[in-house]
Amino acid sequence: MKSYRHPPIRSVRLSTVMHALSDPWRLKIVHHLANAGDLECTCSDVDMTISKATRSHHFQVLREAGLVRMRSDGNKCRTSLRQADLDKRFPGLLKFIAGHKGAV
Amino acid sequence: MKSYRHPPIRSVRLSTVMHALSDPWRLKIVHHLANAGDLECTCSDVDMTISKATRSHHFQVLREAGLVRMRSDGNKCRTSLRQADLDKRFPGLLKFIAGHKGAV
Repeated sequence: MKSYRHPPIRSVRLSTVMHALSDPWRLKIVHHLANAGDLECTCSDVDMTISKATRSHHFQVLREAGLVRMRSDGNKCRTSLRQADLDKRFPGLLKFIAGHKGAV
Repeated sequence: MKSYRHPPIRSVRLSTVMHALSDPWRLKIVHHLANAGDLECTCSDVDMTISKATRSHHFQVLREAGLVRMRSDGNKCRTSLRQADLDKRFPGLLKFIAGHKGAV
């Protein structure tokens, strides 16, 4: 079963997080998860009109930036926000993203 | 006297703002201004060990992303945060940036 590497949250820089959020699709994923509470999602749960490879790339960038945790579940990959880690390291970030209205 | 173009805040996208904040120097500038209240600064007020040209580029990116307002004052350029605009369009963003501790 595939395993994923996740950076320790203390090593994550704010500029890296901002870069991960500088793409509208990645913002859409984080916005979706931040409004869904503790929900896990699969790559296909978020409505995105892009190829599977591009979608996977965006999830990978979010994981490497410390924003999401991914785990294998059979042949699926389940993703969740690192809510507690992010609230501790970057207090206010997720609340801000979740509360944003309109286009990203 | 040089004049500067500033995008209407309603046309600014969150992903554009995030991109502007994805560089550690630009984050440092915004962090400085967000903690300084209404203060205006010149390019040289923020402690940055980079060339004047690079510094000017970073201020330009922040201006084009709607984060700062710039005006000529003799042979200087004065920069301030678009605090009211940003608080209206992206509530919580400046508070989050200002409150961030540690490396950006």
